[in-house]
Amino acid sequence: MQPLYEGKAKRLYTTDDPNVLRMEYKDEATAFNALKKAEFENKGKLNKAITLALYRMLEAKGVKTHLVEDIDEININVKAVDILLVEVIVRNFAAGSFSKRVGVAEGTAFNQPIVEFSYKSDELGDPLINTAYAREMGLATEEECAELKRQALIVNEVLIDFFKRTGLKLVDFKIEFGRTRDGDKEIVLADEISPDTCRLWDLETGEKLDKDRFRQDLGDVMAGYEEILRRIESELS
Amino acid sequence: MQPLYEGKAKRLYTTDDPNVLRMEYKDEATAFNALKKAEFENKGKLNKAITLALYRMLEAKGVKTHLVEDIDEININVKAVDILLVEVIVRNFAAGSFSKRVGVAEGTAFNQPIVEFSYKSDELGDPLINTAYAREMGLATEEECAELKRQALIVNEVLIDFFKRTGLKLVDFKIEFGRTRDGDKEIVLADEISPDTCRLWDLETGEKLDKDRFRQDLGDVMAGYEEILRRIESELS
Repeated sequence: MQPLYEGKAKRLYTTDDPNVLRMEYKDEATAFNALKKAEFENKGKLNKAITLALYRMLEAKGVKTHLVEDIDEININVKAVDILLVEVIVRNFAAGSFSKRVGVAEGTAFNQPIVEFSYKSDELGDPLINTAYAREMGLATEEECAELKRQALIVNEVLIDFFKRTGLKLVDFKIEFGRTRDGDKEIVLADEISPDTCRLWDLETGEKLDKDRFRQDLGDVMAGYEEILRRIESELS
Repeated sequence: MQPLYEGKAKRLYTTDDPNVLRMEYKDEATAFNALKKAEFENKGKLNKAITLALYRMLEAKGVKTHLVEDIDEININVKAVDILLVEVIVRNFAAGSFSKRVGVAEGTAFNQPIVEFSYKSDELGDPLINTAYAREMGLATEEECAELKRQALIVNEVLIDFFKRTGLKLVDFKIEFGRTRDGDKEIVLADEISPDTCRLWDLETGEKLDKDRFRQDLGDVMAGYEEILRRIESELS
């Protein structure tokens, strides 16, 4: 196994199979485009377990993902993909950059989910783009963007429903997709789905259990992540 | 005539007809969301003449506008409309906020025009939005956004072709639409189309003749505006 790539929250290593990579979940956390950094014991473990549970659920609902096999507490094997530089954000309630950008109060419910695209670029701060930008920048065709949107809305439906049963409100989330390198070159869900990439609020109290605890210094960050995993495991058991 | 509204570049007055307003083009110029301000002698006159010529051309091509009648050097009468808070930007070449946002060099040609929407809000700096934002913010339905896009692409085709004949390259432009207050409540092109709202470069030399002369301190601002009007009048004569 050779180190291949280190991101903000995960590391990738080669395996014996050129079509399979080892993905390690790190304990490091970053926010505000890495201006704020910290390390949280067990974050890698928690995010790996949460992502794995959610990915398996999504696979069972017909969503194709990069998942190959579970390895250990912080590692999974994934299909080698070229990550599309278009991130997909789905919003059910106003929060974060949406609220800031357009001045709509956090927590405002949408009639229908908002799907948006951002250009995956740390340097530029993952700016909001539209499908014409993606097309002209060579990131994805408009047809591919439509397919990413369709997939993202399926993920949203599955996750809203599941999290509701755990007493959590899915406020918004960011997902990434990759194109497999082997024969069929299909586009599959890649990256993680975790409290780092979702906003999850307690349905009763409104308590934030996700990375906003870190961004906004709301207290024990990992307690939120642990509570999310506990509810997921309880619902699935 | 009573003053009704003062914007950054124009003033509106009531007239005897409640469905008609007097629009006065001012000499003031602003840039960077009004952080940079100046007054240019004749700007109102030049922008009014340029807008009037372009609006008449667009009307002749079937585009509905707020135009009622020409009054004098700086005034026209327009239909009373409620301006949609969705601005429409059409880009044929990379420049301005596009280049800054996604790091694409100014002047890069697009295969097809990029159409984007921004939320008309001085306070928020007219942020980029998508049609889902517009829908959820109650600014316009997705069907209305599709119609604004369709109209904007017609305006773009007409203007690209016309400006090419005057030796000018239409880099990008921003337009606004309004809903008439009388019976049919139709959506018409409103506001101005001028060097304040278009980027226009000389086809041969690349010289900038628009408001970027002011934004970027490129020299005699009104010389650019005068040159644009001269070429328009020469082509139309």
